[in-house]
Amino acid sequence: MNKIILVTGGARSGKSTFSESLTDAFRTKRFYIATAHIFDEEMRSRVELHQARRAGQGWTTLEEEYDLTAALAKAADQGAEAVLVDCLTVWINNLLFRDPDFSEGKMAETAEDLIVSLKKFPGTVILVLNEVGMGIVPENQLARTFRDCSGRCGQMIAAVADEVWLCVCGIPMKIKG
Amino acid sequence: MNKIILVTGGARSGKSTFSESLTDAFRTKRFYIATAHIFDEEMRSRVELHQARRAGQGWTTLEEEYDLTAALAKAADQGAEAVLVDCLTVWINNLLFRDPDFSEGKMAETAEDLIVSLKKFPGTVILVLNEVGMGIVPENQLARTFRDCSGRCGQMIAAVADEVWLCVCGIPMKIKG
Amino acid sequence: MNKIILVTGGARSGKSTFSESLTDAFRTKRFYIATAHIFDEEMRSRVELHQARRAGQGWTTLEEEYDLTAALAKAADQGAEAVLVDCLTVWINNLLFRDPDFSEGKMAETAEDLIVSLKKFPGTVILVLNEVGMGIVPENQLARTFRDCSGRCGQMIAAVADEVWLCVCGIPMKIKG
Repeated sequence: MNKIILVTGGARSGKSTFSESLTDAFRTKRFYIATAHIFDEEMRSRVELHQARRAGQGWTTLEEEYDLTAALAKAADQGAEAVLVDCLTVWINNLLFRDPDFSEGKMAETAEDLIVSLKKFPGTVILVLNEVGMGIVPENQLARTFRDCSGRCGQMIAAVADEVWLCVCGIPMKIKG
Repeated sequence: MNKIILVTGGARSGKSTFSESLTDAFRTKRFYIATAHIFDEEMRSRVELHQARRAGQGWTTLEEEYDLTAALAKAADQGAEAVLVDCLTVWINNLLFRDPDFSEGKMAETAEDLIVSLKKFPGTVILVLNEVGMGIVPENQLARTFRDCSGRCGQMIAAVADEVWLCVCGIPMKIKG
Repeated sequence: MNKIILVTGGARSGKSTFSESLTDAFRTKRFYIATAHIFDEEMRSRVELHQARRAGQGWTTLEEEYDLTAALAKAADQGAEAVLVDCLTVWINNLLFRDPDFSEGKMAETAEDLIVSLKKFPGTVILVLNEVGMGIVPENQLARTFRDCSGRCGQMIAAVADEVWLCVCGIPMKIKG
C-alpha cells in the first residue's frame, strides 16, 4: 500500500533517526536513497555517522544525487517495501548547483514529477527535509533561492503526504495525518 | 466583532495562502494591507506572486509601508470587515531602515500603538509575521536588532491575539485560541 | 523530587520569561545559573534586561561559564529547590571558544556528564536552549559545529527530560511530558 511520509525539522533535530525507526517493520525490505555527493571530509564524516547507525540493520543503499524517480523505480524493482530518501535538502542543493538557472518555478515542476513517482511507489516512502526557513533572510541570493525552493518543495510534498512530522530536540511531533 | 489573528512561520511555509483563506468569508469586504516597498526586481517578482493569487478575488489593496494605524483606519472607513496585513516582517524592516536608532525598545512602543489600533478595528485583522529567530545568531548587528524587534513584536501581538497559528510546510498549526 | 525541564525556542520567543514562571512555586529557594560572560555592551544590556525582570523576586544568582555540575552542586548545598540554567546556548558557545578542538563528539561527552548532575539534583532544574538549527546552513565552519553541538545537546537532554517546551511568539507549547 502506498504511503508518503514527510519528516522535517532543524539541523540535528533527530529527523534521520526518527525516519529510520519508521521503517523498522520492513527490516529486510528497506532501502535507503542517499542523495549526498561526498565532496569533502566534513561531508564524509556526516555521511559515515549515518552509515554507522544503519550498518547490519538490513538496509540496501542506493546512491542518487538527482533522479529520485529512477531511484524509486529501482528500489521497487528490487522488492523494496519501504524507502527512506535522506534527504531532499541535499537533493535540492544538487539540483541548484547543477543548473545555474534553477528557480522556485523549476523546483515546483521537479517536485510535481517527484510526487507522481511517490504516488506510484508500491510501499512506504519516507522523505527527510531540513527546515531552513526560520532564520534571518540570507544576504546571499543563491541561499534565498535555495530557501524558497526548499519551502516550495516541502509544501508540495506535505500537501500529498499521509503524514508530516516536525522534529524538535529529537522529539517527533505529528503535524499532519 | 473585533478579532485579532497572528500567523507566523518560516519562509515559504504557506503563511500568506493560509492567511488569505481565513478571509474567505468576507470576499467583498476584505482588504489587503501591503507593507512592501518594491525596490528591486526580486522583490517585484515576490509581490507579483502574491498579487496573482489574489486577483479577481474581491480584495481591495492598500499600500502602507509605515503607518499601519492609518491604513487600518482607512480600511475601516471603507467598510472592511477583514484586513490582512502582509506582512509585519517587512513593516519592521521598513521601520528599521527609516530610523538608524530603531531598537527593541522603540519596537515595543510602536507595537503598543499598533495593538491599540488592532483592538479598535471593527472586524477581523490577520497579521503575518515571519519566524526569523530559529537560526544561528547573525554576525551582523542590524540583523540581530531586526531579529530581536521581530520577536518582541510577535510576542506582544500574540499576547493580545485571539488566535495564533504556526505554519510549517504549508500546514497551519493552531498554537493559541 | 528530581525534575528536568528543557525549554527551547527561537530568539525572543519568550523562553526566559516562561522558564522563570515555572519556578514561581519556589520563590525563596530558587537559583539562577547565569552562563554569560559579559564581553561587550550589547551583551551587558541583554543580561541587564534579564536581571531587571528577576530583581526582588527572591532569586539567588550564581555565575558559571563552564562547569554546570559544580554550579548545580553549589546550588543544592545552599538549599535550592529550583534552578534555572539560562542558558545552555551560551554555555555551549563558551565551551567552543575555550577549546579549538571542541566537536560534536566532545559535546556528547560533556552533555552526558551534565545529565548525570541533572539527575542527581534534589529538585527541579529548568534548562533554556535556543533553537538555532532552522535557518540556512551557515557558511562558517565554527557556526556549523556550534549548530551541531547545540542540536546534539538538546536531543540528549530532551531524551531524559520530564518535560520539553517549545516557545513560539511567547507561547509555550509542551512537546514532551
